[in-house]
Amino acid sequence: MASERPASGEDSLIARYFRPLATDPGAFDLGDDAAILRAFGDDIVVTTDAIVEGVHFLSDDPPDTIARKALGVNLSDLAAKGAIPAGCVLTLALRTVDEAWLSSFAQALGEDTAKFGCPLLGGDTVSTPGPLMISVTAFGRVPPGKMVRRNGAKPGDLVVVTGTIGDAALGLDVLRQGTATRAADPAAKAMLIERYRVPLPRVALASAVRDHAHAAMDVSDGLAGDLAKLCGASGVSAKIHAAHIPLSAAAATLVASGAVGIEAIVAGGDDYEILCAIPPGSFDAFEQAARKAGVAVTVIGDIVKGSSLRFIDGQGDKIILPRLSYSHF
Amino acid sequence: MASERPASGEDSLIARYFRPLATDPGAFDLGDDAAILRAFGDDIVVTTDAIVEGVHFLSDDPPDTIARKALGVNLSDLAAKGAIPAGCVLTLALRTVDEAWLSSFAQALGEDTAKFGCPLLGGDTVSTPGPLMISVTAFGRVPPGKMVRRNGAKPGDLVVVTGTIGDAALGLDVLRQGTATRAADPAAKAMLIERYRVPLPRVALASAVRDHAHAAMDVSDGLAGDLAKLCGASGVSAKIHAAHIPLSAAAATLVASGAVGIEAIVAGGDDYEILCAIPPGSFDAFEQAARKAGVAVTVIGDIVKGSSLRFIDGQGDKIILPRLSYSHF
Repeated sequence: MASERPASGEDSLIARYFRPLATDPGAFDLGDDAAILRAFGDDIVVTTDAIVEGVHFLSDDPPDTIARKALGVNLSDLAAKGAIPAGCVLTLALRTVDEAWLSSFAQALGEDTAKFGCPLLGGDTVSTPGPLMISVTAFGRVPPGKMVRRNGAKPGDLVVVTGTIGDAALGLDVLRQGTATRAADPAAKAMLIERYRVPLPRVALASAVRDHAHAAMDVSDGLAGDLAKLCGASGVSAKIHAAHIPLSAAAATLVASGAVGIEAIVAGGDDYEILCAIPPGSFDAFEQAARKAGVAVTVIGDIVKGSSLRFIDGQGDKIILPRLSYSHF
Repeated sequence: MASERPASGEDSLIARYFRPLATDPGAFDLGDDAAILRAFGDDIVVTTDAIVEGVHFLSDDPPDTIARKALGVNLSDLAAKGAIPAGCVLTLALRTVDEAWLSSFAQALGEDTAKFGCPLLGGDTVSTPGPLMISVTAFGRVPPGKMVRRNGAKPGDLVVVTGTIGDAALGLDVLRQGTATRAADPAAKAMLIERYRVPLPRVALASAVRDHAHAAMDVSDGLAGDLAKLCGASGVSAKIHAAHIPLSAAAATLVASGAVGIEAIVAGGDDYEILCAIPPGSFDAFEQAARKAGVAVTVIGDIVKGSSLRFIDGQGDKIILPRLSYSHF
């Protein structure tokens, strides 16, 4: 296409908004065609996740929340793998150059790349006639061979999750003016929306996960479905006590009132919490490390032999889940 | 949105089409949330480039050519930096799952990841209501500190390009039934279209570039504009003999007939050739290495002091360039 538009617009856009985020010397101030990532003897952990307007975020979501989400969903993966952030690259597909939007987007991205130690190493800015799309590839470091896999869970391990589950899915329901959440009070609604828009990547927990977990992954497509994946990869199953699943006060109120069923909580996406299998003998040390990191962790069940994942209620009866998670196709 | 679609579609799609491409043990058969990239004591070179339907490729381009282009534009960057491919990750934004399209796309991608030693390490598949978009982040290895930058060109260096320049831009003109290329014969048209659709990344030249070039980059947005960037980064200028710019027979015929001006050739994009500054004393060794790699290299001018890039014709007169290259914004 090489024909319609003047040169320099793309470069000046990058210089203006994104160069300040390229604080790592290997980024060469975004002035070269590639960056250098040094491993310092570690393994480089690589993860990539994209978010699309109308699919992973809404058209009128504030640009700062979109930036934080694009980075956060990737940092969440690194944390679940026990990796310390090392840097990221960004592909930004834009319809137009909206300076106010870009300024807010880049400032928030810069705040979070600084906060989480994940400097921008490079990127590509392209024009699209379609929805906004932000694709981030993030890099972390772990000592050689120490990346925490999905496939190491063993019968007897405790199933542990961070934070609270279901808030983001409820926040999306609020934004869509869903019936389930119509009853929530304004403060609860605001909190749930915030949880949908901005994940809280558990970066501070990475080394504790690395030191103690047999297996881990982040919960992005729904607790039930993601746990099924972890169990499938490990050749085990799990028995989960639904009543032990950590809920925010807002979510708990909605569940208690009957407005929302627990099945919507466990199959809702966008939690970006860490799900892990911790051997019982390590749990105290893991919990202590988590407390130090300021991250709540909750035991919700046990890894067991077998292949049929069970969520049970307070009476010990199995809860029927019509679906486990979200899939794009 | 975690709500509308059944789970498992995305996972089975990945398993079916992309798992065979994940030949590196660090990819864990695409069965985990992240991959491991080992540095083996080298620096990891990181580059990312996205291609968008209607912007970088056309809606009716064959899927195998789209796959090769998405990978090739990134391999071209690695080669220009002197890096040997190590792996890549892929983000694929699709409107629908078209099995025939995906099968052809994945097969061609697999052929080229194998051919160029750049196995798939991971990816993300998302749904979009908009144009297809393929974002690739590619990794290479160079000995520590040996990545070839844009900024090392010195007065006296020879300006060298690989292959031929302008074919891809002419190929796009053919596809758009442009007047410039209406005169070309069918075989010439087919060749030009192929050059637009499928870059020929000069991976085989990476180590020669690393060993001999003071500065290098790939030509993606137009020879003139990209040379201006290289010179700007190096604080030098260049004097280019337009008559020395290597042209294919098809392009040379179009230029000789007056159908196409040289200014369209030097400002056209999508060449994906390597542009580099080679000290005169190293040129023989560089040329020999290039011959061994099967890549044609041509001296087109000299790096000089100053800041005003000059393209001169056979009479020594300066050629006026209305624009230097393509920019997205």
